[in-house]
Amino acid sequence: MSRFLDRRYRNLTPYVPGEQPRNPGYVKLNTNESPFPPSPRVLQALSGEEVQRLNLYPDPEAWAVRRAVAELYGLAENQVMMTNGSDEALAFCFLAFCGAEKGVAYPSVSYGFYPVYARLCSLDALEIPLGEDFTICPEAYSALGRTVVIANPNAPTGLSLSRDEIEEIVLKNPDSVVVVDEAYVDFGGESAVPLIGRYDNLVVVQTCSKSRNLAGMRLGFALGDAALIADLNAVRCSFNPYNLSRPACLAGEAAIRDAAYFRTCTDRIIRTREAFSAALREIGFSVLPSAANFVFAAPPGIGGEDYYKALRARGVLIRYFDRPGLREYVRITIGSDAQMRLLLEKTTEILEERK
Amino acid sequence: MSRFLDRRYRNLTPYVPGEQPRNPGYVKLNTNESPFPPSPRVLQALSGEEVQRLNLYPDPEAWAVRRAVAELYGLAENQVMMTNGSDEALAFCFLAFCGAEKGVAYPSVSYGFYPVYARLCSLDALEIPLGEDFTICPEAYSALGRTVVIANPNAPTGLSLSRDEIEEIVLKNPDSVVVVDEAYVDFGGESAVPLIGRYDNLVVVQTCSKSRNLAGMRLGFALGDAALIADLNAVRCSFNPYNLSRPACLAGEAAIRDAAYFRTCTDRIIRTREAFSAALREIGFSVLPSAANFVFAAPPGIGGEDYYKALRARGVLIRYFDRPGLREYVRITIGSDAQMRLLLEKTTEILEERK
Repeated sequence: MSRFLDRRYRNLTPYVPGEQPRNPGYVKLNTNESPFPPSPRVLQALSGEEVQRLNLYPDPEAWAVRRAVAELYGLAENQVMMTNGSDEALAFCFLAFCGAEKGVAYPSVSYGFYPVYARLCSLDALEIPLGEDFTICPEAYSALGRTVVIANPNAPTGLSLSRDEIEEIVLKNPDSVVVVDEAYVDFGGESAVPLIGRYDNLVVVQTCSKSRNLAGMRLGFALGDAALIADLNAVRCSFNPYNLSRPACLAGEAAIRDAAYFRTCTDRIIRTREAFSAALREIGFSVLPSAANFVFAAPPGIGGEDYYKALRARGVLIRYFDRPGLREYVRITIGSDAQMRLLLEKTTEILEERK
Repeated sequence: MSRFLDRRYRNLTPYVPGEQPRNPGYVKLNTNESPFPPSPRVLQALSGEEVQRLNLYPDPEAWAVRRAVAELYGLAENQVMMTNGSDEALAFCFLAFCGAEKGVAYPSVSYGFYPVYARLCSLDALEIPLGEDFTICPEAYSALGRTVVIANPNAPTGLSLSRDEIEEIVLKNPDSVVVVDEAYVDFGGESAVPLIGRYDNLVVVQTCSKSRNLAGMRLGFALGDAALIADLNAVRCSFNPYNLSRPACLAGEAAIRDAAYFRTCTDRIIRTREAFSAALREIGFSVLPSAANFVFAAPPGIGGEDYYKALRARGVLIRYFDRPGLREYVRITIGSDAQMRLLLEKTTEILEERK
């Protein structure tokens, strides 16, 4: 830290992304990436003449990709804002809708970035405990007088709320914005997007990183009432109006419009997840029912960190949690069938060795 | 605006980027883009197998491109931070180094984004007038007790300060950060980068949008003392750690390493600028000596806005200024020789018609 850093930021604890090893030899099941390449339409869009035109600025309104998202969900273009990954959308939500007048509330176990944003914005943050079974209890989110942020499905648990439960939270907080972070919704969750026309206090954030196989392209979006999206755009354009590159716009549009490839990929992840969860249970794991592209599971007779280390030594990366109540668990991304078979083999070895 | 927008942001006036017409028929000399395509090495880097791997997250530390920048300038990697365009780097500087304790100061005529950042961060902003001849007077930046932001060369004037003059400002504000925005420095300015090892209060911001022909890729960087860069990284990683896409990292590294192409392009722009400035003077324009990839000029017998409109009607876009003291002037980006010839032809028509 220098002597020049503004006082507000002296206690920042930046978000630490999942390990991104430079050694490409690892089987990476630690950051919820898709095991599948982007849609062939994305590769086509990026290989055309357009890439020659990188000397020109992109469209600061990201019109073409915004329209593709709007059409996908039956929304108007002014109900959609595109961002440099969904993390940027969430950052703009924390900036725009929290602050001096309004604190924020989110589950005590959820996406690890929420407390980071709260510190960045010097917010009064209320962390609402999960139930014993790791569920989010919608009744606990009633009339909070704060901006509410809910990941649905939640991370790292993979558990999801129904649209009716989300609607209940939106209804019970009419004077606060409810941000529903649907990074993982396409793997079995129920999206809150159909509620958008009916409530002026709902923002849904989604990403192309998981179900659209574009983590490397950085593309997310916020959906909501036109007035809320106008607020977010005011902040975005006061921060970085050219936030999406030309390739990101092209890739995003192509990925969003390739519904068939999207369904193929998400269906495969769901099938693999169900078979993998069953296989884990068979060898003694406790596995939460997941609606995401990962599972949250406790291995038998070995703590999360030890299991992580044993797998890492065998070339497989997953995620463990150094936090009370989560130490028995790990989060495992759903990769290809071959990757999950490999993880199961290594796991059998590890458990055998400890017998 | 919704009823939910935080009080601080109710008076935001977002930055309005230069006109980006959807009609590709215009000759665009209004947003200081390069007329040249990206380096062939960039195109090669983007067409390889790497683009298949967009399903994987990028390196949040942007190691490879950061090293390329560090090597270019003889700096250490921890003196470099990469950003999603230089606008993002500037935003992080305003967040990190201004605030409750410290206001900001910048020239009254400069990059139009500075007042926008100042409002975003609710800063006390001091706008320091230019001299009659549009120059920045270094003496006016002495012991300000504020963070100082200077575009060098300045926009839209194109006038530049020497490294010694910048050093004087850095020396005279030892307890404040001085941010030197060198977006245009490669077209004839004198960079402050060689001062970095000697001062702990200097940040230099540069971009790949202009001299590296990559406006469409969104790539900028901040250079400075390692402690200042650590501060900026703390803010970046509390906001959006994966701020650069894989293609941006690949393109940036290739562009930075292609020194020969860079020199060819910047040399051509400088030659064209000098010939174009002489031609404008010949037909009665007043033209400021530019060290940038644009010129700031006053046409004879016609105001800036009228000249802009007349050119626009003939398919050429430039920029005018609706502000006291600037109304006689326009800013014209230096494009290809053919584009400048076309603009001169249209200008002769316009001036003839008004005789």
